[in-house]
Amino acid sequence: MSTSLPSNASYPDQLAHIQDQMGALGNAAPSLMQGFGGLHKAASAPGALDTKTKELIALAIAVSARCDGCIAFHTNDALKAGASREEITDALGVAVLMGGGPAMIYATHVLDAVSQFEHINAG
Amino acid sequence: MSTSLPSNASYPDQLAHIQDQMGALGNAAPSLMQGFGGLHKAASAPGALDTKTKELIALAIAVSARCDGCIAFHTNDALKAGASREEITDALGVAVLMGGGPAMIYATHVLDAVSQFEHINAG
Amino acid sequence: MSTSLPSNASYPDQLAHIQDQMGALGNAAPSLMQGFGGLHKAASAPGALDTKTKELIALAIAVSARCDGCIAFHTNDALKAGASREEITDALGVAVLMGGGPAMIYATHVLDAVSQFEHINAG
Amino acid sequence: MSTSLPSNASYPDQLAHIQDQMGALGNAAPSLMQGFGGLHKAASAPGALDTKTKELIALAIAVSARCDGCIAFHTNDALKAGASREEITDALGVAVLMGGGPAMIYATHVLDAVSQFEHINAG
Amino acid sequence: MSTSLPSNASYPDQLAHIQDQMGALGNAAPSLMQGFGGLHKAASAPGALDTKTKELIALAIAVSARCDGCIAFHTNDALKAGASREEITDALGVAVLMGGGPAMIYATHVLDAVSQFEHINAG
Amino acid sequence: MSTSLPSNASYPDQLAHIQDQMGALGNAAPSLMQGFGGLHKAASAPGALDTKTKELIALAIAVSARCDGCIAFHTNDALKAGASREEITDALGVAVLMGGGPAMIYATHVLDAVSQFEHINAG
Repeated sequence: MSTSLPSNASYPDQLAHIQDQMGALGNAAPSLMQGFGGLHKAASAPGALDTKTKELIALAIAVSARCDGCIAFHTNDALKAGASREEITDALGVAVLMGGGPAMIYATHVLDAVSQFEHINAG
Repeated sequence: MSTSLPSNASYPDQLAHIQDQMGALGNAAPSLMQGFGGLHKAASAPGALDTKTKELIALAIAVSARCDGCIAFHTNDALKAGASREEITDALGVAVLMGGGPAMIYATHVLDAVSQFEHINAG
Repeated sequence: MSTSLPSNASYPDQLAHIQDQMGALGNAAPSLMQGFGGLHKAASAPGALDTKTKELIALAIAVSARCDGCIAFHTNDALKAGASREEITDALGVAVLMGGGPAMIYATHVLDAVSQFEHINAG
Repeated sequence: MSTSLPSNASYPDQLAHIQDQMGALGNAAPSLMQGFGGLHKAASAPGALDTKTKELIALAIAVSARCDGCIAFHTNDALKAGASREEITDALGVAVLMGGGPAMIYATHVLDAVSQFEHINAG
Repeated sequence: MSTSLPSNASYPDQLAHIQDQMGALGNAAPSLMQGFGGLHKAASAPGALDTKTKELIALAIAVSARCDGCIAFHTNDALKAGASREEITDALGVAVLMGGGPAMIYATHVLDAVSQFEHINAG
Repeated sequence: MSTSLPSNASYPDQLAHIQDQMGALGNAAPSLMQGFGGLHKAASAPGALDTKTKELIALAIAVSARCDGCIAFHTNDALKAGASREEITDALGVAVLMGGGPAMIYATHVLDAVSQFEHINAG
C-alpha cells in the first residue's frame, strides 16, 4: 500500500519515505535500480577523494539544484561520512557562489536538515 | 478570495488548487492564458504521437525539472490518456538517466501521485 | 536552537524562517554573508532601473527557477518597492513565456504569495 | 534545404539562423508555432509594464537559463524596444544575484551581443 | 592524446568526439562508466515502452535541459530506433510546452541535427 | 573596444575573453562587481575546507549546470589549487551521479579543458 508523506515532513522523515518509494521503484524496475545503484556506489566510493569530500560535493549540487529530497539524502550521508558543520558550511558557500539567491535559500534548508539529523543521532 | 493550499497537500488537492489559481491568472491576463492554452492544446493533441505518449514525455520533463505541481498535472493527464503504471515507470527510468539523483527523488513523487489519483478514480 | 518550519507554511512565515536561518548562516560564515549582502545591495539599488523594476526581474527569475523561498522573498520586496498586482502579473507572463508549464505552476504560487502578504500588510 | 550554422557565429547570425529554423518548425507544426506565437505576443505586448521592461526581464531570464540563442533574441528585442546599455547592465546585475557564477559568465555574453547588434545597426 | 573539437562542429562530429572522451573517462574511472552504462542500458531497453519512445523522451529532456551534446546523442539514437521527423517534431512540441522560449531555441538545434545525421546516413 | 570570441575557442581562450568582459562589466557596474568579487573571495578562501576542495566543488557544480565558461574558469582554478587529474575525475563522477546524461556530456568537456590548460602550463 502506498501512502504519501507530507513534503513538510522533517528531513529524516522525508528520507525514510523516499527510501521506501525507491524500494517500490526497485521492485517495479529492478534493472533500472541496479544501474542507478551501481552508479551511486561508484561515485561515492573512496578514491582520489574520500567519501566525505564526495558527499560534500553531492550536497552542494543538491543545493544548487534546489532539491529538498536530495538535501535529505546527502546531508545524512555527509554527516555519516564524518563531515563537520564547518565543512558543510564551507560547501554551502561554494553552492551560493555558483547558484546565487536560490542557492542561499536552499543553503538555509541544509541548516534545518543538519539540526534535525543531529537531533536524531543524539536522541 | 484567494486562499493558499499547503504544499504538502495530496497531488489531487495540489492540482485542484493550481487549476483555481490558473483561473484567477486567466481573469487577470486573458491573452496570456489564451496563448498558453493554445500552446498546450497544440502540444498535447494526437498527431504523429498519440496523447498518451505526449503526456509521458511531459511527465518525464516534469520529473527532470523537479516540479511537483507539474507532476500533479501530468500524472493525472497521463493516467486519463490511458498510461499504465508500467509505461509511467519506463518514462521515469529515462528521466532518471537524464536527471540523475534529483530525478530519482522526483520519480518517487510520481509513485505517490499515481497512487493518489488511482485511489480517487477508484473511489 | 534550530527548529524547522514546515514548507507548507504561508509565504510570510517561510520568509521569516529563511531570514532567521540566514542570520544563523551569517554567524557561521560572516565573510560569505557579507559578500552576498554586498552583491544583493548592488543588484537591488536604484540605477538606470529603479528598485521596483529590479524586484520584478528577480521575481520573474524566481518563478523560472521554481524556487518557493525566492518567491517569498521577492514577492515581498516587489510589493514593498511599490509594484502593483498588474505589474507583477505582467512579469509573470514573461516568466511563463521563458519557462513554459513549470513557470505557469510557480506563477500561481506568486498569486498565493501576493494575497498573503497583502493580507498581512492590511492587517 | 537545411544547413547548420556554427554555434560560434555572431549573435546576429545566430538570430538569423534560429529565425530560419523556427520558420521550418512552423511549416512542420503550424498549430504549435501559432500557440507559441500567441504566447509570445501576449507576454511582450505593452500593458502594466512596457515592452522594454518586459524584454529586459526576458533577457535576464535568458542569462539565468544560460541560453545563448535566447540572448541573441532578447538582446536584439531589448535594443529595438529602446533599452540602453545602462538598463541592460542593471538587468544583468539582477541575473547575477539570482544565478551566481554561471549568470556572470552569460552576462558577459550579453555584452558581446550588445556590441554586435549595435555594430550592425550603426553599419 | 587529447585534442579538443570545436563546439561548432556538426552534431555527428560532436557525437564522435564525445564518444572518444567517454572512452577516455571510462579508462580513468571504469566503475563509474560501468554504473552509468548499466543505467543507460536499463533506461533504453524495450519494456512497457519501446526504445523509440524512450529515445523521444530522452531527446525532449535534452531540449528542455538545453544540452547540445545530448541532442547529438539522442537525435542519433532516436533516428536509429526508427523515429520519423514527424514523431521527433511532436516530441519537440511537448518540450516547448514544458520549456518555453529556451526549449524553442534548442528545438531548432534538433532540426539541424536531424538533417546532418540524415545526410550522413544517406551518404 | 569590444570584440567577440568564437564559442569554439579553446578553454584557455574562452577564459581570457571572459576575464576581459568581466573587466568591462566591472567598469560599467563597479559595485556589482565588487559584491560578486567579495562573494567569490569568501567562497574560495581556505577555511574548514581548503581551496582545492572548494574548487572541485565549484567545478562539479559547473558541470551539473552545463556551463562551458564556468568549466574554463574552475578547471583552471582547480589545477592552480593543486587538484590532480584523479581528483578532478572523482569530482566529475559525483556530478554525473547528480546530473545524469547531460553531466556526462559536460564531464567530457572538462577532460578537454584539463588537457588544454596542462598543455599551456607545460608550454
